[in-house]
Amino acid sequence: MRHFTVELEELNQKLLQMGGLVESAIHRSVRALLEQDRELAEEVIRDEPKINKMEMEIDGLVTRLLALRQPVARDLRDILASIKIASDIERIGDLAANVAKRAIALNQSAPVRPVAAVPRMGKLAQQAIKDVIDAYVEQDAQKAIAVWQRDDDLDDLTSSLFRELLTYMMEDPRSISPCAHLLFIAKNIERIGDHATNIAETVHFLVLGYRPTTARPKGDTSSYEVVEPPEGEAPATGKAPLGKSAAGQD
Amino acid sequence: MRHFTVELEELNQKLLQMGGLVESAIHRSVRALLEQDRELAEEVIRDEPKINKMEMEIDGLVTRLLALRQPVARDLRDILASIKIASDIERIGDLAANVAKRAIALNQSAPVRPVAAVPRMGKLAQQAIKDVIDAYVEQDAQKAIAVWQRDDDLDDLTSSLFRELLTYMMEDPRSISPCAHLLFIAKNIERIGDHATNIAETVHFLVLGYRPTTARPKGDTSSYEVVEPPEGEAPATGKAPLGKSAAGQD
Repeated sequence: MRHFTVELEELNQKLLQMGGLVESAIHRSVRALLEQDRELAEEVIRDEPKINKMEMEIDGLVTRLLALRQPVARDLRDILASIKIASDIERIGDLAANVAKRAIALNQSAPVRPVAAVPRMGKLAQQAIKDVIDAYVEQDAQKAIAVWQRDDDLDDLTSSLFRELLTYMMEDPRSISPCAHLLFIAKNIERIGDHATNIAETVHFLVLGYRPTTARPKGDTSSYEVVEPPEGEAPATGKAPLGKSAAGQD
Repeated sequence: MRHFTVELEELNQKLLQMGGLVESAIHRSVRALLEQDRELAEEVIRDEPKINKMEMEIDGLVTRLLALRQPVARDLRDILASIKIASDIERIGDLAANVAKRAIALNQSAPVRPVAAVPRMGKLAQQAIKDVIDAYVEQDAQKAIAVWQRDDDLDDLTSSLFRELLTYMMEDPRSISPCAHLLFIAKNIERIGDHATNIAETVHFLVLGYRPTTARPKGDTSSYEVVEPPEGEAPATGKAPLGKSAAGQD
């Protein structure tokens, strides 16, 4: 089984490498947004197919491993987990690329103030990916559960940024288009955190044989908050009254 | 191998059942939105864990199948494909539940006009899921590629609804919160279509051994469109000028 161990190691290495690529993609897409750096954003978009290609390589490696080694028990679960984890990482790559696309669109206009909240969200998402992939490689369920619990911080940042953006849109109709891009950028980063959470659940299940049971408090409540237009800014039309804030997680 | 065939059949049946559940979830969440039916929306949210549970059952069945039957070649690829497909269906269930959550928030306020475009998007998404799961069960690559190509229609509907929503938000600050919910509802339905596209690629690869090659034209261009506020509605402040439209796909 010596050679089998080497193949499992190769699988882990590929997952680590894939994780490194998406961490960098998140970092660069957020920087491209802040520094209005179109070239950097285009670089992130160009790199995305590499991440997709790595997922296919991992799927191919897994298929070969299963066919040739016919592993059972823990080895089998470990190998199947890597398919799921690679799929989450691939989607994270898509989301980072979409942040880069929207950064390019946003950079056509003057910066809007709420952008300032994005880098902190990007850092949290990057750290979550790093930690959860380490948790997989180290088979550390505690580290996985910590990532799973920390996702609330990202949810909370998203919700407060959403409220800020909606208020900002109400103050100035010309900020509506750029702020709508920012709504989706924030949502993309929050969804990156959700994928890290999926990976944490996969690792927890792999190591302990069951999924995390403590219900993780979701940031959903913000779906029901009211965001009022600032005094005197709402034209007295008979149109739709103010609804609820658009925050809230998938 | 008679019994193995029965187990594969069971796997297909579970995927069909899961697909039926998310089709119904999409249908009901859109109806809940249109008819402002809070109970129906809550029903969709309550049903979501059933879909997650089915994914875990499929994973368990796959693990048993691989351990006991140690399939190779086409059988192995078929079984691995079902893990990926179940994961896409599970995410579709999350997205439908999020549409239902936002429907509840939206129903707190008077209906906004652009809601009218949503049912057509919901129908397209539902049909895509039905067709692509049939394509898997019938191992029909042509049917899969048709779903893959039709996703453009959903992308186009999303882009035009986005432009409509942004214009509507510019006309009336009080519509900004409900319209922001609608932006995300539209995005969720568009992402449901993307997951159907993922499944189509999985089926194509399974049946023909390679991924669809014709690059599917993405609706991305709309990320670069300008949406102007209507004449005389933009206060002459020194704030951020109008950016680009917020449409655009992951």
